[in-house]
Amino acid sequence: MTTAPHTKAGRRGRPGYDLESVLRVAVKLFNERGYDGTSMEDLARKLGITKSAIYHHVPSKQELLRLAVDRALDGLFGVAEEAEKLAGPAIERLEFLVRGSVAVLVDRLPFVTLLLRVRGNTKVERDALARRREFDRIVADLVAMAESEGDIRPDVDPAITARLLFGMVNSLIEWYRPKRGDTDIADTVARIAFEGMRPRS
Amino acid sequence: MTTAPHTKAGRRGRPGYDLESVLRVAVKLFNERGYDGTSMEDLARKLGITKSAIYHHVPSKQELLRLAVDRALDGLFGVAEEAEKLAGPAIERLEFLVRGSVAVLVDRLPFVTLLLRVRGNTKVERDALARRREFDRIVADLVAMAESEGDIRPDVDPAITARLLFGMVNSLIEWYRPKRGDTDIADTVARIAFEGMRPRS
Repeated sequence: MTTAPHTKAGRRGRPGYDLESVLRVAVKLFNERGYDGTSMEDLARKLGITKSAIYHHVPSKQELLRLAVDRALDGLFGVAEEAEKLAGPAIERLEFLVRGSVAVLVDRLPFVTLLLRVRGNTKVERDALARRREFDRIVADLVAMAESEGDIRPDVDPAITARLLFGMVNSLIEWYRPKRGDTDIADTVARIAFEGMRPRS
Repeated sequence: MTTAPHTKAGRRGRPGYDLESVLRVAVKLFNERGYDGTSMEDLARKLGITKSAIYHHVPSKQELLRLAVDRALDGLFGVAEEAEKLAGPAIERLEFLVRGSVAVLVDRLPFVTLLLRVRGNTKVERDALARRREFDRIVADLVAMAESEGDIRPDVDPAITARLLFGMVNSLIEWYRPKRGDTDIADTVARIAFEGMRPRS
């Protein structure tokens, strides 16, 4: 009897893994030890299965990385596409994008953490960096448009404003850990970013 | 004839290195390949000198790391001490701290980059993380004080405001590269952080 690769059913009496759980453990290891510092051997040991059992699900370590960073990027681009479809001023689309990005970050924290640490030594990493640049361009264009509509302060270069905005958003991977009863972190980020730390009179 | 370790004078006809230039090259390699991924052998090859020539300046790789992260931390704590000595409301001390931290970051970019990537596997790294936490506490205390003085919006947890503020500041290591004729980046960060992206009427 064989087991479909994407179910959690056991294989030969051992606890089984589907691609999703292999991926989650791989991402955890990549984040702890670095992608280069993690071997398929390490992953097999951590999962308590053989390397060939992993290759049953996924052809290579690179492919695990690709699946992981795409999980983060697809979430962010999904929000960007929704934002672009909205009617109304650019500032509202930008705020939608910021709130949605925070939600993706919180929901897919280990995947986004891995994405933001990618440095570009392999094809998969270079592709991920190219998609990140494309996302940054979408943000910068929205900031520039909102500035030309008079809704973003004109005394700062829109490219720098965009960088600082997502510097704030992306910092969540370093310190944010969801807790029960949290106030909405997306709302908090949006308030501080758009309105500033000082009270508005 | 021996050469004092801290001069740039040549040794035996080869271009010489002082501790400072060994440190700068080491930090560059650590940032490119990771601290764990860089051996003293790699550093010797990059410098074009022998390992024993490096040990003439510094006893170990750990000591290079310690010197590097302390360069960053000493800068940040120097600013924090100056900020604490100022008279006036907490919001002014906080703004001084933000502007000063940005200046340290820009001035010591490779050192701060290394500091912010430290993950804590060795004593030197754990010590650096402890000093970072102490610095974060200083920031959080100032934000809380400024909030109690009515100068920071009361609708956000001061600890989170402090995190977002330095998330924005620290993001500079990812994207900021000083250019001739730049407007003052410390001023830009302070404006966006304190006043927000939206224009104030």
